[in-house]
Amino acid sequence: MSGHIVWARESAIATITLVNPGKRNALDFAMWQQLAEIAGRLSKDDQLRCVVVRGDGDQAFAAGGDIAEFLSQRDTLDRAMAYHAQAGAALQALYDCRPPTIALIQGSCIGGGLEIAAQCDLRICGASARFGAPINRLGFSMYPGEMQALLRLLGPATMLEILLEGRLLDAQEALLKGLVTRLVADAEVVDEAYATARRICAGAPLVARTHKQWIRRLQQPSPLSDEELRASFAFLDTEDYREGLAAFLEKRQPHFRAC
Amino acid sequence: MSGHIVWARESAIATITLVNPGKRNALDFAMWQQLAEIAGRLSKDDQLRCVVVRGDGDQAFAAGGDIAEFLSQRDTLDRAMAYHAQAGAALQALYDCRPPTIALIQGSCIGGGLEIAAQCDLRICGASARFGAPINRLGFSMYPGEMQALLRLLGPATMLEILLEGRLLDAQEALLKGLVTRLVADAEVVDEAYATARRICAGAPLVARTHKQWIRRLQQPSPLSDEELRASFAFLDTEDYREGLAAFLEKRQPHFRAC
Amino acid sequence: MSGHIVWARESAIATITLVNPGKRNALDFAMWQQLAEIAGRLSKDDQLRCVVVRGDGDQAFAAGGDIAEFLSQRDTLDRAMAYHAQAGAALQALYDCRPPTIALIQGSCIGGGLEIAAQCDLRICGASARFGAPINRLGFSMYPGEMQALLRLLGPATMLEILLEGRLLDAQEALLKGLVTRLVADAEVVDEAYATARRICAGAPLVARTHKQWIRRLQQPSPLSDEELRASFAFLDTEDYREGLAAFLEKRQPHFRAC
Repeated sequence: MSGHIVWARESAIATITLVNPGKRNALDFAMWQQLAEIAGRLSKDDQLRCVVVRGDGDQAFAAGGDIAEFLSQRDTLDRAMAYHAQAGAALQALYDCRPPTIALIQGSCIGGGLEIAAQCDLRICGASARFGAPINRLGFSMYPGEMQALLRLLGPATMLEILLEGRLLDAQEALLKGLVTRLVADAEVVDEAYATARRICAGAPLVARTHKQWIRRLQQPSPLSDEELRASFAFLDTEDYREGLAAFLEKRQPHFRAC
Repeated sequence: MSGHIVWARESAIATITLVNPGKRNALDFAMWQQLAEIAGRLSKDDQLRCVVVRGDGDQAFAAGGDIAEFLSQRDTLDRAMAYHAQAGAALQALYDCRPPTIALIQGSCIGGGLEIAAQCDLRICGASARFGAPINRLGFSMYPGEMQALLRLLGPATMLEILLEGRLLDAQEALLKGLVTRLVADAEVVDEAYATARRICAGAPLVARTHKQWIRRLQQPSPLSDEELRASFAFLDTEDYREGLAAFLEKRQPHFRAC
Repeated sequence: MSGHIVWARESAIATITLVNPGKRNALDFAMWQQLAEIAGRLSKDDQLRCVVVRGDGDQAFAAGGDIAEFLSQRDTLDRAMAYHAQAGAALQALYDCRPPTIALIQGSCIGGGLEIAAQCDLRICGASARFGAPINRLGFSMYPGEMQALLRLLGPATMLEILLEGRLLDAQEALLKGLVTRLVADAEVVDEAYATARRICAGAPLVARTHKQWIRRLQQPSPLSDEELRASFAFLDTEDYREGLAAFLEKRQPHFRAC
């Protein structure tokens, strides 16, 4: 009846799937709750090297929020604040997820779906994917607490284009404007997303998590302290660093451990 | 004799035209004054849903400043400060304009013209448009107070390219580097700009103004306060929100009011 | 045996060449030392109007750091801090270099090579250039003090792509993602880089240095003071400004002096 989130794990790669049959995986309140819970749980799993986020089926990543629900769940100021606190918690949990995350995007990636994709580290889409947030025709504005990740990804000019015009961008436009990392044929998008996941898994897991953390840190205005700079050499004492250098010098593939 | 700015309004869309015959619409002091005044006036008009800014004719948006005038109007430090205070007031008034703004760009978009285009929310250009600020060959540097909007739009790498090399970028380069929102054939640029304006007009006017305001606010470093977040739900009490949801659920076009 | 940096000057253009034969110009400690020293020296030369940075030969700009050296030069926390203090000093000296800088990129532009290219003002590459930092397979993370220039150039999304996936980007991807200023055929990259240098030299030298300085300044959060704004009109008293305006009004080429 209502939507839900399922997840599965195969080896070091987990997949989170947004499921809302008949509604093109539109996000409802229960899905935001489950997404927050699952992203939080996967973040704690040190054996995990990559998380793929996708929509159920091949027609939509997620086609926005479940609008019908707004009439009852988001009709007063207090309920609207509670609704978006939950959506915000899910988006934050995805952003905070320690292993790298990949959005596998087929079809519609709209509104809440676009917000979820923007929280992932990489975005792989098929040629018929469509992106936007045409809420100007619904008469409401995007919650500013949910605009920050999109603004970080797109910059103000593309944000203005998407929100003021309310057009959907096709996959080529999304690539040109930096909304997606890579664009492939529709038939190849699943393969490419998991090939990307395997490339990530082929690297040292601690290095991936450390890079994610530094890129976040460097977007903060305060300068790096000497202590932080020294801490960045924690890899020197790891087995994976010794293995990485040895493999390079012996011209063989490295074999890294989990975190 | 000297240049001037004209404006006209048709329904909810106003058009501002930069006019300087024989000088490819180069901006002179009187034009900066008029632009500031007109942009300020249009910002106060609650019936207005979109403003298009364009050059007179189809050969130039604006081909820079009126250089001959610099010999008398910008020849001392005090006159230079006064000149750029006026240009800055016009650029700021355009940036502050509450309805969404679209630059319709044909031909040369150079120097002061480029600065004006960068203050607009969207930029639609024709295939033979040209962009740049080759003032390194005029022996003066861009006023830093006028560089901020360009830097926000282009980033430091493209700013350095434009200002250090002094080349003009063609329309394809401008699209690739994020300088323009969209590139169409020369014969279609007027139609596309007004089609964009109509897409904006098809959305709820208050939502457009709110999105503009939040995108500006989120570029400030201070975090959003609880009060601001609550204020973002002001749409809940609007007729346009009820109309938007109702139209969506009834699968019909919404009819929105003015602000 | 070890790598080294050579430089030469022809008229107002200096060329810095990264040389490490048999190692695709990989950066070693001695090269970082020499690069810091040479960039510092060229910055003080007021006759210089442009600096081109390139790799020796046409197969590599620089293919990363000299990994073998890490076993002895970067094996403890203190030696790692000292190593990266030197690399950081070289990168900073290049960023601080007062004349405009152009990276002429052929072949591999990886790791330390990518960091050097990111410090230059413009980047011209050939079609077979390759970009990245696949250190996730070496088991170590990029020094955060060296990530800032890359992050400024690429933004967080492309940084995550490069560091998490460890793929090399080809020249077309690098152009699309804003990593390079311009992409030309391999056979034309040297000509295009020096044509770019000559375009820079055709402008007023002081204007180039001033533009570089303001673009850096405007990336700082503090607002421009009235004193800074007034100082921006220092060009009013220069011979080059008078020459630039006169040449423009007389429709002839200007002849500028050095700084």
